[in-house]
Formats: sequence, C-alpha cells, structure tokens
Amino acid sequence: MMPRVWTVTPEEFRVAAHQLIDWIADYRATVTQRPVRSEVAPGWVRDALGAPPPEAPEPFEDVLQDLRDVVVPGVTQTQAPGYFAWFPSNASLESVLGDMAASGLGALGITWQSAPALTEMEEVVTDWLRELCGLTDAWHGAIHDTASTACLVALLAARERATAISEDRGGLQAESAPLTVYASTQAHSSVAKGVLLAGFGRDNLRLVPVDSVTYAMDVTALRHMMADDVAAGRRPAAVVASLGTTGTTAFDDVMSITEVASAHGAWVHVDAAMAGSAMLLPECRTLFTGVEGADSFGWNPHKWMGTILDCSLLYVRDVELLIRVFSTNPSYLRAASDGEVTQYKDWGIPLGRRFRAMKLWFHLRLAGAEAIRARLRRDLANAQWLAQAADADGEWEVCAPVALQTVCLRHHPAGVTDPAALDRHQQEWAERINATGRAFVTPAQVEGRWLVRVSVGAEATELQDVAALWQLCRQSVHVASP
Amino acid sequence: MMPRVWTVTPEEFRVAAHQLIDWIADYRATVTQRPVRSEVAPGWVRDALGAPPPEAPEPFEDVLQDLRDVVVPGVTQTQAPGYFAWFPSNASLESVLGDMAASGLGALGITWQSAPALTEMEEVVTDWLRELCGLTDAWHGAIHDTASTACLVALLAARERATAISEDRGGLQAESAPLTVYASTQAHSSVAKGVLLAGFGRDNLRLVPVDSVTYAMDVTALRHMMADDVAAGRRPAAVVASLGTTGTTAFDDVMSITEVASAHGAWVHVDAAMAGSAMLLPECRTLFTGVEGADSFGWNPHKWMGTILDCSLLYVRDVELLIRVFSTNPSYLRAASDGEVTQYKDWGIPLGRRFRAMKLWFHLRLAGAEAIRARLRRDLANAQWLAQAADADGEWEVCAPVALQTVCLRHHPAGVTDPAALDRHQQEWAERINATGRAFVTPAQVEGRWLVRVSVGAEATELQDVAALWQLCRQSVHVASP
Repeated sequence: MMPRVWTVTPEEFRVAAHQLIDWIADYRATVTQRPVRSEVAPGWVRDALGAPPPEAPEPFEDVLQDLRDVVVPGVTQTQAPGYFAWFPSNASLESVLGDMAASGLGALGITWQSAPALTEMEEVVTDWLRELCGLTDAWHGAIHDTASTACLVALLAARERATAISEDRGGLQAESAPLTVYASTQAHSSVAKGVLLAGFGRDNLRLVPVDSVTYAMDVTALRHMMADDVAAGRRPAAVVASLGTTGTTAFDDVMSITEVASAHGAWVHVDAAMAGSAMLLPECRTLFTGVEGADSFGWNPHKWMGTILDCSLLYVRDVELLIRVFSTNPSYLRAASDGEVTQYKDWGIPLGRRFRAMKLWFHLRLAGAEAIRARLRRDLANAQWLAQAADADGEWEVCAPVALQTVCLRHHPAGVTDPAALDRHQQEWAERINATGRAFVTPAQVEGRWLVRVSVGAEATELQDVAALWQLCRQSVHVASP
Repeated sequence: MMPRVWTVTPEEFRVAAHQLIDWIADYRATVTQRPVRSEVAPGWVRDALGAPPPEAPEPFEDVLQDLRDVVVPGVTQTQAPGYFAWFPSNASLESVLGDMAASGLGALGITWQSAPALTEMEEVVTDWLRELCGLTDAWHGAIHDTASTACLVALLAARERATAISEDRGGLQAESAPLTVYASTQAHSSVAKGVLLAGFGRDNLRLVPVDSVTYAMDVTALRHMMADDVAAGRRPAAVVASLGTTGTTAFDDVMSITEVASAHGAWVHVDAAMAGSAMLLPECRTLFTGVEGADSFGWNPHKWMGTILDCSLLYVRDVELLIRVFSTNPSYLRAASDGEVTQYKDWGIPLGRRFRAMKLWFHLRLAGAEAIRARLRRDLANAQWLAQAADADGEWEVCAPVALQTVCLRHHPAGVTDPAALDRHQQEWAERINATGRAFVTPAQVEGRWLVRVSVGAEATELQDVAALWQLCRQSVHVASP
C-alpha cells in the first residue's frame, strides 16, 4: 500500500486539537499538584523519548501520554504559584490563545507582501505598548525573540554608527582606534556575550563598578573610564544601561549615563528586559527617567507582563540607521509596495518571522491593560509584604532595595560570621526550599557574596503564596545541613 | 469595583480555545476559497486594527471576528494548493498540534534545569532528523529561528576559530590580516548580511562566480580568489556553500569546496535551508555529497518538510568551539547538574528558548517519516511534470536544472528578442497569474535576467494543481499588456 501523503486532515486535526485543549486546560488547572522544580535526573527524558525516529504514524493518544508522563515532570512549573525563581515567566492564557491562532494560520513573515497583517499588527501592538508605557512616538518598535538578541542588534547598530556603516568599508577590521563598550558589573550576561559576538573584543568591554547599596552603575566611574579610553586613543561606541538588573533589580541612572555618553557620541542601549513591564504603571515611571534620551530600549512582555515567550520588544529612535545596518533586498523579495511599507526583515537578524504580534494582540485585547496593571500592582505589594516581614525579623537581611518585585534575602544564623560559611548557608537553605517541591527560589552571587532571590510575580502567586514561602524560608534555615 | 487580576481562567480558556480550534479547522478546510496572494493595500490592516490600546477586556467573539475579517485577507495563503511563491512554507497540522502543546505548557528554556525536557527533547529530535538525513553522529544539532541566524552563528564561530577566540583579546579589531569570506553570487542574501553583522566588512566578502548552466559555484574561481587573498596578506576564514540556492535550487560542489577551504583552514558552512528536506530521500543524497566534510550544516524543517515556522536546524561538528564562542555562565544560572547536561544557551545567540522541539516531535510522530518522504516524492514528480510540459512547448524555456521541486521558467513570445522587453514580459505574465488569486509565483533575477520561479511543494498541492498552474501560465502570456 502507498503511504498516505497527507496525514492529518483538518477534520482529524479538529478531533485531536479538542483533546489537546482539554489536556492544556486540565494541566493549567492542576499546576499546584506538581513539584515546582523539575526533579528529573540528567538523561531521564532523553532515555524515555529516545526511540528510533518514527517511520509510521503513531496514535495521538501515545503522544499525549508522553506529554503527561515525561514532558510535564520534565519541566519547571513556571506557572505555579510557588514559582519564585529567575524571573516571572508568565504565559497568560490570553496570549496562549493568540499563539494558537498564529500557529493555526501558519502565515509566513518574510516581507510585508508575504503577510501584510503580520507586519501591520506588529506595528499596532508595539505602538500600543509604547503608549501604555508612556513613551513618545519618537520610538519605533519590533518584536525579537529575546533580550539577548535585542541587545546584540543594538550593539551592532552602535558599532555601525561609530564606524559610519561598515558596508562600504573593511568592517570592524579596518578600525585603527578600538571601539569600547560600557556596562555595569551587574549587567546581564547577554551584554558581555553581545560585545564578543559583535566583535568588539573582551579587552574593549568595560565593566563599570556599582554603588554598594543600590547596585546601580557608578556614573562618575563611567565618566572617568570613558575619558581614560579616549586619552589612550580608543573610541567609546556604546553604553548599556540596565533598568532592573537580574541580580537585585537595580536601576542605573539613564539620564546621567546619556549625558556622559553623548559627549562621546556613544550609543545608549537600555536593557529593561524584566523591569520594563513596570512602565505600564505610571507610579513606577520615575524609575525609568531618562529613557527618552537613549538610542534603543528593550524589554520583554514575555517576563512579568505575561505574554508567552518569545516576545521581546526593541524600540529604536533612528530606524533609518537600523535599516542601513540590517537590510537586504534581493530580487525575489521585491514588490511594488516596497517604498510604502515596513519591512521588519530589515530591522533585525532573521528574515523569516512568526506571527508573534498575535499573542500580544490577544493578550492586550482579552485581558485589557487595566487588569494587567492590577496584577503588577498586586505583585509589588506582595514583594513589599515579604521585604517588611524579613526586615522585621532580626535574623534576616533584605540586601538590596526592593524597587519592584524581587526581594534579595540573606539569613544570618546566630554566631556564624565566616563569609564563606555564610555564603554556603544561603545556598543550602535555598536548596532545602527547592527540594520540598512547594516553591522554587534562585541563589545568586552579587558583588562577591551569595544571596537568595525571591522573584515574586507568577500570575498565580497571591499573598497567601508569598506568606507560605516566608514560612518555608524560616523553616529551612533551622534544619541542620546533612 | 476592583479590576480582575486574573482574567482568563483555565475553564474560560477551555471554552474559548475550543471555539478557536473549530475556527482553525474550518480555516484550513476552506483555504482554497481565498485569493492566494493577499490583495490588501498598505495600511489597510493597520487602519482596521489600530484602535487605542484596550483598557478593558474585549469579548473573545470580537477578536475572532477580526481574525476572520482582517487577518485572514491580510495574509498570503501559504497553505493553499495554488501557493508556488518563494519556497514551500508548510505548517503541517501535526506540527501545529505540537506548537499548541508547547504554548499551553508555557515552559521556560533558559538552562537545562529550567526545563530538562525542553533540552533533551531537542537533543532527541535533532538526532532523529540527523539519522533520517543519513548524517553521521559526528554532528550535533540545535534548533534556531531561521537560517539567517544559523548562518550568522556559523560565521561567528568561523571568525572566532580564525582568531583563536577573541575573548582574551581585542576582538576582530585586533586583527592585522583581514579575514575574508566566500560564497557564490547565487548565495542567499542572509550570507552577505551575516558577513556584515559579524564585522568582516563588505570589502572582505568575495562573491564567487557560478557556472552559467548549473548556477553552482565555480570552484576553480574560488581557488584563485583564495590564493589571491592570501598573496595579498588576507586570511580566508569561511566559505558558505549553498545546497539548493534560492534562485534556481543550484547545488554547489561541497566536496571540492571543502578541499579548497581546508588548505587555508577556512570554516565551511553549508546552507541547505530549503533543500535540506531532500536529504530525507536516499535517492537525493548524491546532491549532498561532501557535507560530512563541512564544519556546519543548516536546513529548515519549516520550509518544504513542513514543520511550522520557526524551526531551523544548525548542525556543527565542533561543539566545544561553539560553546567557547557562545557560552555565558552567571551565578544565577548555575546548577549542580551543569557538567552533565546540554546547555543550548551556549550554542547560539538567545538565552531564552521556546519549546520548539515539540513541533518537530509531534510532526515526526504523528506523520511518520514514510508519509513525509512520500509527500516530498510527490512534489519532485509534480515539478518534473511541469518541467517536461514546458520543455515540450516551443515558447517556453526551463532555464535551470530542476534538481528538486523548483521550476524556473521564461516565456519567449514570437518576435520579441530585446532583453529588457523579455525581462519585462516575464514579470508581467507572473503578475497576471498572481492577480487571478488562483496561484502565486515569484519572479526573480538570476545572473542578470528575469525568470519566474515556480516552487512546487505546498502540502496541499497535487498534480491537478500544478496542471492548473501550467494552464494559467499559457493563458497569462497571451493576454496583451495594458
């Protein structure tokens, strides 16, 4: 018999997809029944799934069964109320619906012509979020996969601006005066990675010290480092300002940084990957003062705001420059409408584009901005509750300002003063919490010492869940190490 | 009244999602009822959708209505049987189910620990496809968004290998001997873009001429260009070999290219974005001879094979080098299991990762490799049918070898010999076809002259659809221009 050429018809899809929807709804409704941190051993999933490549179609039930038995235990439950690790990685069900619509439609985003709606909806939603964040219309936004990519794109634009577009020249290899890039010691690891990938070289990355209380960039030190580099024949090309660092949610002073950078013509990229969601709240906008003076500004709706990954926004002021750096225009992608429309392929690295705007569009329309703001405010209040509880307890230290929803804790057991022992202790009590399966927190090293980050802000996390975590914290520090 | 903090509950999601599934199944079942090419004017979608940002939740019905009335007319129907444009951009319903499962799960891929199943399933499916393509286990694969990104990743690895890792040094800025990169004049536009983004500079990109019949790279010319560069004090760093060019599906001779490149220690990246799917067919493997000698090899299951976008595979041999170039290891991402597991964050640009493996896993399990191969073979046969029909008709020229499923056509009207008039004529008859709404083809300029690419391979395209297109072709050339 000839093998079937077309396997799943729309009618077969309908039946399977309805089953899958019920599975997803059940999964989301019962997310508290699983340990928050996945407890599978390295290789366990691979062993469970790694049969030879399937030659014949398998029943949908078998795939669904593996989803239940192998995949679910194999992932951290980021949607659980006890999830306080890394950063909120919300996947709101509104945005899941949008993602499903995008998948079902199966559109191809390569040029405007290939899917005008994919391009123009992206213009609409990036404008909506710009307005909701109180940014002026000097900014033009596009959706990238992650803040790492957005930061690399910004650094590439900075490099090209500093070298008057390498296209007609020898690229970075023709530069005689090395270009330098600046970011604080608390900047995300993607900044250093972007600097290396963009070819600046690690020797030309300056990690600027931070204030010992706020962990914000020391702008006086930045000024001196830039002056020293210029004196030594180097050229400052870019500064990455962090608004809401990964370690402690510290906010660099963008206004002052921009002032210093502009004296050297250096590009200022603002990385607000996690914290950008707070711009939706007018009362938080002072934390973002100065952003309007930057050259590029990135933040991730796929974090705290809750549009499902991957959904990272990059706004730039000088779109013309961006297009000069990222454009391609082969014959087979040309169309009559070229001059009048946005070609997002010329705004970043990939040519092909998913219909990512759909998940933001569904999310904003089905939730409404007011409900999203209410949830963010709930999380701010819950973080303050935890900080106050820890502050009031003499054994605990809240070791960084709680600007938003991350609380950095250190526990000081009576009589323990050795720094190494104290560091070990923090990692140990965090591990004890994580091993319970009821909550998941992340230890981190900040300026040389270990602390534990409690990142409040999963959609499902209510005050009672933060209170339960606080109780877990106090229990975990009093259990002797094995 | 306080705004609701949690908008869509799992039960509300269940109701809306079932409606959405029916919409998707209906849409897929009726895809032939719409013009293949979207006929909306620039700005029409934006005007239709661009209300102020929504403050309050809107009814799901309203969103669904806009999906029907605005979004669907606003996209090219890439899943329609009359879609012959650009390249097959199949979004198989098997893979849509997998994409939906990934969305519903909402897992976070940053490290192995954040979602072991996300990492290990990606290992499993990239291995499955490696085996199905007949590649040895010397290759290690990961999923990227697009071939543009995969090519940039390969070029960055090449740059770093050529400079013994820039991390400890001055980056590309410290190089005294310029690094050069080679690709054929028929290579995809993403190659030149990648060369510029990686900082090599346009002056250091060599476009190697192609054979005038096969459009494959002239390897003798490559050899001479490399020798000339070395004589001039430059250093060949990378060659991009195209297997299946965008214009005519030409195949470079990777075996010979690798031989020439290895004499200079240059990295060989194989770009088989569209054509890679053909490796699933043992009878097509000779087209890929020599791939095993390359350093990296990329192809897109999201094209002809039909796993929904974005799903681009990049295989490399030297994973150690890749990790040295792309790794980051901040404290907050460390875990006890680090040494034993794969950390895909260190294999490419982004840190955060969607559960992209799921769509490949669903696709392969629910369809089975045999059905996928049968469909690819159907498309090869249909393309041959069209090529033979055109060959047999004295007015038509099949102007490049039909290696796979793309047929490049030129029509020669009696008495027209002026090259510019002939070029215009090709664009005109293509436009007449596209304006019918019944099919969509792409004109392209190949080595200076315009032809029309018929890219056979939409999942829904059967022989009768190719025959209907052929009839459209013959009708379209005999209508007078306005």
